[in-house]
Amino acid sequence: MGFDRLIDAIVRTQNPTVAGLDPKLDFVPASIKNDCFHTYGKTLEGAAAALLSFNKAIIDQICDIVPAVKPQAAYYEMYGWQGVKALAETISYAQEKGMFVITDGKRNDIGTTMEAYATAHLGVTDVAGEPLSAFGADALTVNGYLGTDGIKPLLNICAAQDKGIFVLVKTSNPSSGELQDKKLSDGATVYEQMGRMCEGWGEESRGKYGYSAVGAVVGATYPEQLAEMRAKAPHTFFLVPGYGAQGGGAQDAKNAFDENGLGAIINSSRGIMCAWKKQGLTEEDFAVAARNEAIRMREDILSTITIR
Amino acid sequence: MGFDRLIDAIVRTQNPTVAGLDPKLDFVPASIKNDCFHTYGKTLEGAAAALLSFNKAIIDQICDIVPAVKPQAAYYEMYGWQGVKALAETISYAQEKGMFVITDGKRNDIGTTMEAYATAHLGVTDVAGEPLSAFGADALTVNGYLGTDGIKPLLNICAAQDKGIFVLVKTSNPSSGELQDKKLSDGATVYEQMGRMCEGWGEESRGKYGYSAVGAVVGATYPEQLAEMRAKAPHTFFLVPGYGAQGGGAQDAKNAFDENGLGAIINSSRGIMCAWKKQGLTEEDFAVAARNEAIRMREDILSTITIR
Repeated sequence: MGFDRLIDAIVRTQNPTVAGLDPKLDFVPASIKNDCFHTYGKTLEGAAAALLSFNKAIIDQICDIVPAVKPQAAYYEMYGWQGVKALAETISYAQEKGMFVITDGKRNDIGTTMEAYATAHLGVTDVAGEPLSAFGADALTVNGYLGTDGIKPLLNICAAQDKGIFVLVKTSNPSSGELQDKKLSDGATVYEQMGRMCEGWGEESRGKYGYSAVGAVVGATYPEQLAEMRAKAPHTFFLVPGYGAQGGGAQDAKNAFDENGLGAIINSSRGIMCAWKKQGLTEEDFAVAARNEAIRMREDILSTITIR
Repeated sequence: MGFDRLIDAIVRTQNPTVAGLDPKLDFVPASIKNDCFHTYGKTLEGAAAALLSFNKAIIDQICDIVPAVKPQAAYYEMYGWQGVKALAETISYAQEKGMFVITDGKRNDIGTTMEAYATAHLGVTDVAGEPLSAFGADALTVNGYLGTDGIKPLLNICAAQDKGIFVLVKTSNPSSGELQDKKLSDGATVYEQMGRMCEGWGEESRGKYGYSAVGAVVGATYPEQLAEMRAKAPHTFFLVPGYGAQGGGAQDAKNAFDENGLGAIINSSRGIMCAWKKQGLTEEDFAVAARNEAIRMREDILSTITIR
């Protein structure tokens, strides 16, 4: 119910962070790539095999200390259906290792089409009576620009399968304000209106921690808005991008949490995947470096909050 | 340049319509499904094979009279990477038959991530020096909620590869107004602001018909807003959903066109795919029925406009 499964894992690991798995081929060590190209050629299949191998090594290193991973769909789609297959295999592998998986797909559509996305990424597909899992993540990021028609179909599947969604509210990028910061005639900003809609959509799905299955994406790069939205959307769990490479620090991210140190999970993607560069290690040590960085990040975040 | 390739095809076929390929397995005749399940079992692979076979039959029947198809990504993702493979194969097949392909993915993200989506769906993926096409459609629908950071990476690829995008402006669904109709403090609506942004993003890519490579999605179910946006976004080509099953008629869709009968393409998905039901034919005749409906729809639209 709500994001209880994720929050339980955060409390257990004492770690409110998620590792983004956005594996550009450039991030993958030459030895892995060479092995895969040797087997499959310089093909989409070869690239996909390299991504999967890279992801598995990182998951192996962090699964006992980090509660969740967030694969970004774009970096898999870039390698065609072969890459998308690697996404499905990454999701399964992380779940086998006990991790909560958030597919970052920012999907959005209406009615039966949104139902199809919900089924694809969170639900179970019916093939002539056979229930089959297509991607089967634990949560999905979505875009709420289309309103309730685009969110309702997700809520049914979240309730039936104990899954969650994160709606884009105030994104971490420099131009996010072009639309999101615009003031509406009632004085609220567009992102504030989107936050209100999240609170409404989540009313029926609040779990034991008080957070619903309808979370929100709010960036660490806008710490004031993060604090504002924490106060205004008290039942909405936050997925917070923008820590690390994008410029947000622990003092910024702190504003995402409630008085119990809950209510949010902070993402790091490049910081984790490319950690070897900052640690003076070789690329072959990327997975150990990722673990070191995950530990450092956890300590950094926990220096500003206490999880109760 | 701009949407010249698409508009040339519209002028040549005298047909400003696009067939949506949103193949739910329920739409596929039993004979096709049985063949595929016989070969692949009741699996995602079997379902995907059935979708592809269904799509090819429709494309074969309409490719000489309809300029474009619009596969909806959700209905392929629902069947896992196997379904996504069928999407890639559908795109290639339609292009081989001379059709312009719009992938309806409503993708959105920022910076390098949006670059990855742009590469995936419109561009060419580099795998260790090998240029490979992942999906390679001619245009992609996108969501502009994230602002310029989410659109810029697409513009480069549109320019380099002569491709286009359609940004969601005023969508056809009942709840689209929850956010999109909200008035901003300057008196404009959110959708109007999005339309302005489209005009801005498209400034550098106007083609010979005056339309840029940055199109907009504006629904036929809101004919007044369609007329308003046609006037306010004179360089923005419209993809118009909502005709037929969603309730919009030719008189509504008419508002999307300029004085030359150009400036828009009207979509029909279920109307085309499930046409046999309305024509008193059997499901085995779905492809012929789709052609009949495509001809009827063209005549219906052309009863209200003249393409010059």
